[in-house]
Amino acid sequence: VEDEETVILANARFYEAINLGSLSLMESLWVHDERVKCVHPGWNILEGWEQIKNSWSMIFTHGAPINVEPIGAQAEVQGDIAWVTCLERITHRTMGQVVLGAAQTTNIFERVGDKWLMILHHASPIPVQGLIRERLQ
Amino acid sequence: VEDEETVILANARFYEAINLGSLSLMESLWVHDERVKCVHPGWNILEGWEQIKNSWSMIFTHGAPINVEPIGAQAEVQGDIAWVTCLERITHRTMGQVVLGAAQTTNIFERVGDKWLMILHHASPIPVQGLIRERLQ
Repeated sequence: VEDEETVILANARFYEAINLGSLSLMESLWVHDERVKCVHPGWNILEGWEQIKNSWSMIFTHGAPINVEPIGAQAEVQGDIAWVTCLERITHRTMGQVVLGAAQTTNIFERVGDKWLMILHHASPIPVQGLIRERLQ
Repeated sequence: VEDEETVILANARFYEAINLGSLSLMESLWVHDERVKCVHPGWNILEGWEQIKNSWSMIFTHGAPINVEPIGAQAEVQGDIAWVTCLERITHRTMGQVVLGAAQTTNIFERVGDKWLMILHHASPIPVQGLIRERLQ
């Protein structure tokens, strides 16, 4: 249970990096090698830390969401690997309007020393209805 | 490397179950407990084996795709957990027409005895352009 709580905190930290638009915080949360993978909602997969770092840099420079809030995060830990599923409640600005979006997400973490570092992020667009249903539960 | 090859085979077997529309083969490939999770393209997350089994039963009964082909599968193994990323090339029938779709996928497997069983499946819709780009590489 303790491990799972630490993983949930690492997951929360990832969303903190997004909401702060902080590339340096984001960098500190990932494994930096060729195994890392990232799927932004509706994007093709990005592979290797360089590509992923560039994508965050681009997102933080042009068109970061206003806020991404993880909802219902659940962690599973097995040895030095952990995975978290959560719903992302995404507030963003499009064409001058504030719009609510939702993504279903799988995040995989690897234990490195006393830290859990992200090794895979996969967020996929889902209808906002799912978000409302989740909220009502 | 041997482990990774076994995981790639387990992943291929999952698509075989889809293409055969075989619920019994599909059942034999998953962990059967409350930890398992499944995100079909554009769906909300399903949790626990019962929900997931029911979803496959529904998919196989009504509107299974004609074919789902995994492309570019890559496996990572860490202890008793492995994860595979791949692109799904999905051929399905809509309104009497044969349509090509694509999904970006993360599959997580757990080693149970000498088998790798699926513990998470997450497929997310992506533009078919991504599929064409992948094909040209």
